[in-house]
This record gives sequence, structure tokens and C-alpha cells, in this order.
Amino acid sequence: MTQALIPLADGVEEMEAVILIDVLRRAKWTVVTTGIAGEVVTASRGTRLIPDRHWNVLKPMDFDMLVLPGGADGVRALRQFPPIVELVKRFVAENKWVAAVCAGPLILLDAGVLSGRRFTAHPGVFDQLPASGRSSERVVVDGRLVTSRGPGACFEFALRLVSLLDGPDKASALAEAMLVKA
Amino acid sequence: MTQALIPLADGVEEMEAVILIDVLRRAKWTVVTTGIAGEVVTASRGTRLIPDRHWNVLKPMDFDMLVLPGGADGVRALRQFPPIVELVKRFVAENKWVAAVCAGPLILLDAGVLSGRRFTAHPGVFDQLPASGRSSERVVVDGRLVTSRGPGACFEFALRLVSLLDGPDKASALAEAMLVKA
Repeated sequence: MTQALIPLADGVEEMEAVILIDVLRRAKWTVVTTGIAGEVVTASRGTRLIPDRHWNVLKPMDFDMLVLPGGADGVRALRQFPPIVELVKRFVAENKWVAAVCAGPLILLDAGVLSGRRFTAHPGVFDQLPASGRSSERVVVDGRLVTSRGPGACFEFALRLVSLLDGPDKASALAEAMLVKA
Repeated sequence: MTQALIPLADGVEEMEAVILIDVLRRAKWTVVTTGIAGEVVTASRGTRLIPDRHWNVLKPMDFDMLVLPGGADGVRALRQFPPIVELVKRFVAENKWVAAVCAGPLILLDAGVLSGRRFTAHPGVFDQLPASGRSSERVVVDGRLVTSRGPGACFEFALRLVSLLDGPDKASALAEAMLVKA
């Protein structure tokens, strides 16, 4: 089964993080959240989350997919942590999956992996991203680079990841159990 | 501004809890989460959350609204904690707002506040609830009792609460910023 790594920094958008964690675990994936600072992450609207493992004890290249949630301050913290930007480069170089939502695609920009690719992001950060590949679709798939726009698109985003890796029937069954609108 | 209390027990559905917390805080409400056991709540798909305050140090009747997230085990724990069931009775008796989603309406059943009311719940617990008032709408409002069906309906559910208390324009603005589908 797919193994997904989700870095969480202070200021992460908690709905985006938790919808992705939960939906991918419902799909029976191995989902590991990792913190880059202390033991507790304080998310953008004050929710306090405890990541599964500290970055220092991870082997990030063991994972198949890197998932980058948004939240302005959380994304800023990840952009300022060079190992995450390096990891994006390595994941893309080795043709592993990289998914990012909301302000998360700014990390893809820093890693230099957006050129020649189609992507989306939160409208609030759109003008910081290269005009050539920008799309206003709710979820954009370009090879193994998958991007989305914000918390209200995260069910679709997570289910699209499930559909891409495990097929549309599994995604539909999960959507129905969660009461996600068709 | 509205003050909402959200009890969290081990096994709570983390998407439901976090969407409600986050959206109501975006609406500038005072949202307090409370734990009834230890310092950390382990949610239904393994997310670990730290509630804001322990039940023992709360004044629950200071709040305007009680919000009950779902998750089978989380709801079971709340049903087995008599002060929560009592609190639902007092909130309804004093015409305060009570909101419940997914399996959460089972707590309303225990409190005896469903008779003569229209409500909804997760399809998986529907047959445990009185047939007379059951609705399959995604969000049901009956006076100050507001119910919904599952994680995929929680944006609509939280936004309906905002709309009821603060008006539809505010709810629409929040929906747009979060990229919630119209």
C-alpha cells in the first residue's frame, strides 16, 4: 500500500492536514505526519496536533508520496527548512508522487519543479506562481504532481489521490461513506 | 460573539471536529474544545489532538452553543459520560443552540431531546434513531437543534451554523475564502 509523508509545521491549515491524513488512512494507506520543530504543532486556527514522528528520526525517501498542506505560516516554515525543499526535488527526480494544496505549491516553486508543469494553488498566492502553468481547476494532475486550492477542495483532492493510486471505485466508496457530495 | 463548546473524546472523527473548530473560528466565534479524559485525544484515524481545556475546569453553561462531532468510539465515550448528556438537556431546556453530526445525534437521543423534532445523522446510525423525525437532508435545522450527516457535509454544516447566527453573507464570504463549492 502507498506510504504518504505529511510534514506539519506551526501554522499549518488544520482542515487541510486532517482531511488528507484521515481520507488517506481510510484508504488503508500508511500515512505518517512529521514535525520539524517541537513535539506539538499549533495549527493556523489554534488546533494543537501531535505529529507521529520527528523529522530527525524519519527516512523520508522510504515514502511513495509527499503531501504538503497549506496555511500561510505553516508553508513559510516549510520553505525555510531546506531539507523539505530538497526532498521535493528528490521526489520529483525519482518520479515519486508530490501533492500540494493551498499555499503548499509555493514549496514546489522553491524546489524548481513547476517549470513546464500545470498546477493550481490558493487564489491568494496565485500571483506568486509562474503564470504559464497556472490553472483554476480545483484539482490539477500533471504526471505525479497533484495540486489543489484550499480546505474546501480537500475531500476532492484526497479522493483524487486515492483514485489515481487505487482506482475510482475505491474513491467512490470512500466518498459515499463520508457523505461527500458527488 | 457566539461562544461554542466542542467536547472531544478518544475516537472522535477528526475531520468533523477540526472542520467545525476551524470554520467557526474563521467566523470569529470563541470556540473551546474540552477533553473528558487525559491531556491528549486520539481521534478515529489516529490524529492526536490536545483539547483547549479539561472538562473539570469549564463552566459549560457560559457557552451559547454545544457542538457534538461524530466518530463511533468518540460518541460512545460521550454517551457514557453523564455530565455531557445532562448538558444537552440543560442547553435544550434553556433554548441554547445544540449541533450534532454523524453519530453525534445518538447523544441527543440519550438526552431525550429528539421527540417531536426533525433531525438527521450518519446513515450508519439512522436505525437507532426514532423514525418519526428522521430526514435524509445533509443539514437539518429544527429551532435551535441543528444536525448533519458526516465529514463530507461538515463544511455545509459549519457554514449553516454561521449563517443562522451571523447571516448568510458572512457564511458566503467564508465559503469563498475556503474554496467550498457553492
